[in-house]
Amino acid sequence: MTKHIYIFSPSSAVRDKPAFRRGVLRLTKLGYEVEVDAAALSSHQRFAGDDETRLAAIHRAAASGADVALISRGGYGLTRILPAINYKAIAKAVDKGTHFVGLSDFTALQSALLAKTGAVSWSGPALGEDFGVDGEPDDIMEACFDDLITGQGEGTGWRLPPSAIKEGAASAIPARAGGVFSINNATLWGGNLAVLTSLVGSPYLPAVKGGILFLEEVHEHPYRLERMLTTLLHAGVLAQQKAIVLGQFTNYKLVPHDKGFKLATVVAWLQKQIKAPVLTGLPFGHVPTKVLLPVGEKVVLTVEGRDAFLLWSHAH
Amino acid sequence: MTKHIYIFSPSSAVRDKPAFRRGVLRLTKLGYEVEVDAAALSSHQRFAGDDETRLAAIHRAAASGADVALISRGGYGLTRILPAINYKAIAKAVDKGTHFVGLSDFTALQSALLAKTGAVSWSGPALGEDFGVDGEPDDIMEACFDDLITGQGEGTGWRLPPSAIKEGAASAIPARAGGVFSINNATLWGGNLAVLTSLVGSPYLPAVKGGILFLEEVHEHPYRLERMLTTLLHAGVLAQQKAIVLGQFTNYKLVPHDKGFKLATVVAWLQKQIKAPVLTGLPFGHVPTKVLLPVGEKVVLTVEGRDAFLLWSHAH
Repeated sequence: MTKHIYIFSPSSAVRDKPAFRRGVLRLTKLGYEVEVDAAALSSHQRFAGDDETRLAAIHRAAASGADVALISRGGYGLTRILPAINYKAIAKAVDKGTHFVGLSDFTALQSALLAKTGAVSWSGPALGEDFGVDGEPDDIMEACFDDLITGQGEGTGWRLPPSAIKEGAASAIPARAGGVFSINNATLWGGNLAVLTSLVGSPYLPAVKGGILFLEEVHEHPYRLERMLTTLLHAGVLAQQKAIVLGQFTNYKLVPHDKGFKLATVVAWLQKQIKAPVLTGLPFGHVPTKVLLPVGEKVVLTVEGRDAFLLWSHAH
Repeated sequence: MTKHIYIFSPSSAVRDKPAFRRGVLRLTKLGYEVEVDAAALSSHQRFAGDDETRLAAIHRAAASGADVALISRGGYGLTRILPAINYKAIAKAVDKGTHFVGLSDFTALQSALLAKTGAVSWSGPALGEDFGVDGEPDDIMEACFDDLITGQGEGTGWRLPPSAIKEGAASAIPARAGGVFSINNATLWGGNLAVLTSLVGSPYLPAVKGGILFLEEVHEHPYRLERMLTTLLHAGVLAQQKAIVLGQFTNYKLVPHDKGFKLATVVAWLQKQIKAPVLTGLPFGHVPTKVLLPVGEKVVLTVEGRDAFLLWSHAH
């Protein structure tokens, strides 16, 4: 049966319309039935339509009956409308088989959905930047997306950077059974660091205990990353997790007066603040090669030497 | 008696050493006895010395017996050392007459001090950027500083921008006694928006109810300001205040795709989210003309037409 993808715009206005069109074409060529929300190309100030327009789009996506509700892009716009979203309607759609997929600003909706209903959504691609690239979309991203939509995805694996072994794993992870360890039955959650951090103190941040928190960011200097991580630390969020998994932190600019303060400095600092292991190198973030991750799903995290695996038991 | 000023560096390393020297010279010429902390010009990565060095500097400032303990500059470095600061020692120094003065990153210490002890500190200038400017320091800033150190300051006043009357006051403030209203016995608190927001959910954010919250920021696009304000909103902080007073938001860059989304848009949005009045134009922030404000002090806010006054009853 042809799989049905619903494209909607809950955040910033789509500016790169050729990328939008290429994305729709690509998904169509991959054999999916693509439905574009009526307001997907709406524009109001920075936003993809005013607040009411974007809320209606989210609720149409929930009512679409699609296999995947995919965001056109991230940007900014969800945090301010979180109180007006009908989370029960989204959870009902999820229950009926609609997978909500997106990233970046979409972290706000995903976190709030998990906090309010426990429903699982997916951190993954956006239409324009991932399927609509000028050239071939990333094959790992496409394979993971296909795994999700066909119900074959069971997990993901990646190679830990050597530095993670030195700075993180080796020092912080108790050596178990010859460098092999597993964390079972932990809730996977997370997404964009700035967006997630902006939810601290609100009813939209899930109270996940014993979880595995994954984080990514773009355009933020390491000192700002550290300040955001400090917010999660001082709010008690980090101490409640069984592992922190860092994805890709990209497109920031170091300056001469950093004098050696860099991303690795922040990762090492973070590892000193908490007992749980801090793993790095997860292929997720504002980069072409991104895996899809079930936010709110129970997972198993396994590390064998430099190989890390995140496995989710349920079929989707 | 000659007033004693203690200069210390709790945050970023002093990079502009000529400005530092000019600042010391200026304060000396103004008739103050200036004492420079041993680590004031220390440097470690981005920081004015490593965490232990900066903590020791803060505690030396508290033990200095000075009339004013003034930061050399802001930057970044306080949030990560908040758990290790001896707030009782600072509160004891405040009680004995030391006024802690600073801004920007210093907001973290000021907020934590208020949260932990109730002690009052002062939002105001930094040595280098204010007293150490190449040319004459701002005379209003210097007059306010002199008022503080000589115990003559009783408050501050400013002219509300016309837009504040249209967008804020007129719509949101109930007309009382012919456009005149007062808020009495409210705790003044606040500072830098990003730093304050980074404390949400932590024990370092004061739980001020019925307060007057003042905010300023630099180098942050209005959409990011809005996201930070949304954090304070969703955490319930804004609803607990009797007034929000916005200082100067400077040095950000609008882009073509903002399409009309600007600072005034955010201020108007903010006013719609809360019942308390949102006043603008407070002369405080990353600008030369800045008043000094007692964080944690009980104040009276009075608005008479376009004239706003913040008065603190106690002499300092």
